[in-house]
Amino acid sequence: MRALTVDNGTLRLEREYPEPDLKPGEALIRLAVGGICSTDLEIVRGYAGFRGVIGHEFVGVVEAVGSPAASGWVGRRVVGTINIGCGRCDVCLSDGPEHCPTRTVLGIHSHDGAFADYLTLPVGNLLEVPGEVADEEAVFTEPLAAALRIREQIPVRPTARTAVVGPGRLGLLVAQVLAIGGASVTVLGRRPQSLELPARLGLLTGLVDDAAGDSFDLVVEATGNDAGFAHSLRIVRPQGWLVLKSTFAGRANIDLTKLVVGEIRVVGSRCGPFAPALRLLREAAVTGRGIQVRPLIEAAYSLDEALAGFDHAARPGVRKVLLVA
Amino acid sequence: MRALTVDNGTLRLEREYPEPDLKPGEALIRLAVGGICSTDLEIVRGYAGFRGVIGHEFVGVVEAVGSPAASGWVGRRVVGTINIGCGRCDVCLSDGPEHCPTRTVLGIHSHDGAFADYLTLPVGNLLEVPGEVADEEAVFTEPLAAALRIREQIPVRPTARTAVVGPGRLGLLVAQVLAIGGASVTVLGRRPQSLELPARLGLLTGLVDDAAGDSFDLVVEATGNDAGFAHSLRIVRPQGWLVLKSTFAGRANIDLTKLVVGEIRVVGSRCGPFAPALRLLREAAVTGRGIQVRPLIEAAYSLDEALAGFDHAARPGVRKVLLVA
Repeated sequence: MRALTVDNGTLRLEREYPEPDLKPGEALIRLAVGGICSTDLEIVRGYAGFRGVIGHEFVGVVEAVGSPAASGWVGRRVVGTINIGCGRCDVCLSDGPEHCPTRTVLGIHSHDGAFADYLTLPVGNLLEVPGEVADEEAVFTEPLAAALRIREQIPVRPTARTAVVGPGRLGLLVAQVLAIGGASVTVLGRRPQSLELPARLGLLTGLVDDAAGDSFDLVVEATGNDAGFAHSLRIVRPQGWLVLKSTFAGRANIDLTKLVVGEIRVVGSRCGPFAPALRLLREAAVTGRGIQVRPLIEAAYSLDEALAGFDHAARPGVRKVLLVA
Repeated sequence: MRALTVDNGTLRLEREYPEPDLKPGEALIRLAVGGICSTDLEIVRGYAGFRGVIGHEFVGVVEAVGSPAASGWVGRRVVGTINIGCGRCDVCLSDGPEHCPTRTVLGIHSHDGAFADYLTLPVGNLLEVPGEVADEEAVFTEPLAAALRIREQIPVRPTARTAVVGPGRLGLLVAQVLAIGGASVTVLGRRPQSLELPARLGLLTGLVDDAAGDSFDLVVEATGNDAGFAHSLRIVRPQGWLVLKSTFAGRANIDLTKLVVGEIRVVGSRCGPFAPALRLLREAAVTGRGIQVRPLIEAAYSLDEALAGFDHAARPGVRKVLLVA
């Protein structure tokens, strides 16, 4: 089958990659559409030392299952959560698989990913996509769930002065998620042209260099770079919340004086809940209102042109690039 | 009067420093005992760019007040909170003076401190010391309050695996405060001899290099150095709490990957509530049980020998050095 693999920083489109073995409890899924995110780009640069098929944002159709009891899944259009826990440890039994110390992660850690003709996941990771949600919308389930994770972790008060630093593919989902419930959300970027789309989405915008210090109650860092972190820490008020939403590859030089003296609360934030993400996507598809994902689509490439798709996704200011099987 | 001043990194014992002006609403306090903390040592190294009389941990006696309505304070033995807010801004009116953007801070920011024959504070900052609490215990009110601040900021569950990195003057107060309520608290240090006192205080102890990764639910960083932060981040479990209790002078190089992927919650922590600190000190004085501060006293110097006291306090492994007026 076709598969986009990474090995030691080299991205390769393989044409005769072996189809995955289907184990008991798993589903074999034929890819429909995949989405390239910043973590994928970091992985290509060496983050997490991953080798194998890359990709974790996908929508596809179940072609087979490894256990007869799960045969009801065959033929269904699905998205899937990406963490595969042991299912037996204290972490799995209390909090779920996201922090299982022996977990694998689709396309990120010890489990072949989604940018191939076929992928496998445990059926327990699958959620059916409502018929009203198109493939190119459903492929946003994973990053939208990651944005919703913030609302699971901290209180997002409707009166909070809220900022998202980084008007990128994830930042614009985060900003829309934070605006649910009436909060005033400002998207901050480095260049005026990066603020055009958030303005069209009805969000407040501003240049991050112009944002006043200590002026936001809640700041979400969505750039994944040191400068974005420094700005985020600068603009959050004392006792405010600073959410780190982007994957940071490696280390950053942080002003801990402000963090301590200002009693800032910093929260790392990763994977989120799929079911509410699908409900929001369905609501938007049915009503035309709410979370808008289509404006974030920059381009779509066939899986055969996946390398060009990655090049495109890595360009500055580019938002979501899709891969179509 | 005698006053220990700092100017551009030079600590000086002045013998004819002018007595402070007493403004309306303020009290003139004659120092009884002061305590040297790590922030003082950082200030001498240039932290916060402070100039003037240093010192913010003190117990003393009110000698005069600037407003007749406050004359009831004269003759009382007091401790005092160190932040002086404007009293009018949103922050002062909602959260108190600790984060007022125009606050001054006793001996730290634009307000002469306590290591002098006399200091001034607004009477609203004062708390009377119960008669059962001796001066050399009462002088721990400020750092004990800072330790209690943690319990105001985050839930300290009695079942939480809790660690304090740094068995120093503040770390051992923090560890005792966390142990209230039955939590198992481990004090981690770099050298075996630094763990003797915490062991005598009934706390679990360990070498920080030997502590397993991801093994604590709540970690308090009480070293104020990069290595302590790195260890703290290493040993906190995914989704755990990491409290930064020590003043960091400047920047640190942080592994943000663990912070984000592990969804760690980092909380800066500064000044805390004095009234419960005094209640705990009184309870310990009356019953001989609870928070023990006397074992933390390393030495006492007269104010005339304050420079020697600072030298002593700056030596590795030294805990609380007192200055007696």
